[in-house]
Amino acid sequence: MLAAIEAGGTKFVLAVGHASGAIAARHEIPTRTPEETLAEAASWIQSQGPVAAIGIAAFGPAQLDRNAADWGHILGTPKPGWTHCDIAGYFANRFEIPVGFDTDVNGAALGEYRLGAGRMTGGMAYITVGTGIGGGIIVNGEIVHGVSHPEMGHFYPRREASDRAFAGVCPYHGDCLEGLASGPAILARWGRNLSDLPDDHEAHGLVAGYLAQLCHTLFAFCAVECIVMGGGVMKTPGLLERVHASAQSLDNRYLPGGARHQIVSPKLGNDAGIVGALRLANASRNLSP
Amino acid sequence: MLAAIEAGGTKFVLAVGHASGAIAARHEIPTRTPEETLAEAASWIQSQGPVAAIGIAAFGPAQLDRNAADWGHILGTPKPGWTHCDIAGYFANRFEIPVGFDTDVNGAALGEYRLGAGRMTGGMAYITVGTGIGGGIIVNGEIVHGVSHPEMGHFYPRREASDRAFAGVCPYHGDCLEGLASGPAILARWGRNLSDLPDDHEAHGLVAGYLAQLCHTLFAFCAVECIVMGGGVMKTPGLLERVHASAQSLDNRYLPGGARHQIVSPKLGNDAGIVGALRLANASRNLSP
Repeated sequence: MLAAIEAGGTKFVLAVGHASGAIAARHEIPTRTPEETLAEAASWIQSQGPVAAIGIAAFGPAQLDRNAADWGHILGTPKPGWTHCDIAGYFANRFEIPVGFDTDVNGAALGEYRLGAGRMTGGMAYITVGTGIGGGIIVNGEIVHGVSHPEMGHFYPRREASDRAFAGVCPYHGDCLEGLASGPAILARWGRNLSDLPDDHEAHGLVAGYLAQLCHTLFAFCAVECIVMGGGVMKTPGLLERVHASAQSLDNRYLPGGARHQIVSPKLGNDAGIVGALRLANASRNLSP
Repeated sequence: MLAAIEAGGTKFVLAVGHASGAIAARHEIPTRTPEETLAEAASWIQSQGPVAAIGIAAFGPAQLDRNAADWGHILGTPKPGWTHCDIAGYFANRFEIPVGFDTDVNGAALGEYRLGAGRMTGGMAYITVGTGIGGGIIVNGEIVHGVSHPEMGHFYPRREASDRAFAGVCPYHGDCLEGLASGPAILARWGRNLSDLPDDHEAHGLVAGYLAQLCHTLFAFCAVECIVMGGGVMKTPGLLERVHASAQSLDNRYLPGGARHQIVSPKLGNDAGIVGALRLANASRNLSP
């Protein structure tokens, strides 16, 4: 048996299961202080019987470099108490078994790639559009890691000509994609969630257009075959179709491989992250400690 | 010995050498019709003695999917006669040895990564800014391939507020990055090459700003450690420094790993592509035919 933790800002999802991604038991706890939350998570895992490895898919920013002194730590975060929290070390010390560690979106990308919407040779990206906008990329069968993890919500889409006044809500970049098209950006600007605005409201086209720029840029940069788009904002009826149509229009039949491009919904629903964490647990058994 | 071909639109660079990247002999021929050019390239290689494999880094768009019926072919290109040319098949049939095939920019990326500016754990991108704008990305030690190859010049950078009139020269996208900041775009707009415009000309800041958006987006999407920028336009004095400063300003100290980001010139000069092609030749010996 393997253990999996999807460490989110609001809740921790815990599971034990198999390398295949099959979940044997699942549990959720609210995120409080690191001390309380990590202890409760460890107790639940312990109550499930012996496990061979633990996979953690955590909110970011997080230190993913296994050669760094602070590997497995949360980095600077506005979440009180969590900055520099050594999540991976806590479980490694308590259970003395291998620990796999990655971001929540990389975990979800891995889950969808292996068992969900995206198991294809041409590579895949997983995007979530919710409180923030982030994602993970799989190319050549592996999660893309560089000096850290992708932060795809923070590029600067081109503003629509009719839409240059709103300053955006990102504290670092103003009107980067997250500053324009995340849930809080939509709420700040139009006073409601996207799904609560009338069908003919300009918000639908604007948000779709900005998200389509993310998709077009991903296709152009990484030549991925499939983009899986999840998160609360993507539950808006019609949004995925609008993004797809707008991305095709931006490409204008130029990109080689464009006939195979797909933009789809997650297949694993809320389980992508926890299934990915099981895969991280499994992969950690082959890593040096 | 291994053979290497950098197949460009203007010239073919040919070499024989070693898996290490060391070149034993080198030769250049002008690009004419496929029949003439491929035959002359093959004759030169044959004259150098027996070779164990051939690596080809070709202008794109090209079919890189080894499972496709047209693997190793040039795809639709404005270059007369070259559309659907089966470059890889020509050499495979004539020499009956393994053939590695990739784009010129992926070849250059591989060359710089292994032997030039970019041998680092955190991944690297190689960008060329010349007649077109293109590039290759190396993550987890491998060239990024999806359903095809990256076409990074064709994303849409945000226009500067003072610069929204020029329509751009890309026949597919108008003012995508290539349409705004490639050599022909600069020439069409200002009547001269960037290096021939006065130091205080607005072109320097505008071109640097658009290229910086490419760099920022690459850092945000793929978390690469190093971006190597080559090509004719990048020889403009001061441009690399301007791009670097502008990319830092776009990031605003947000991206994790940002302290390790680098934007540098190629170290292999004009040899990046041919050295990369030698590495492609070497790698092809481990591939199924």
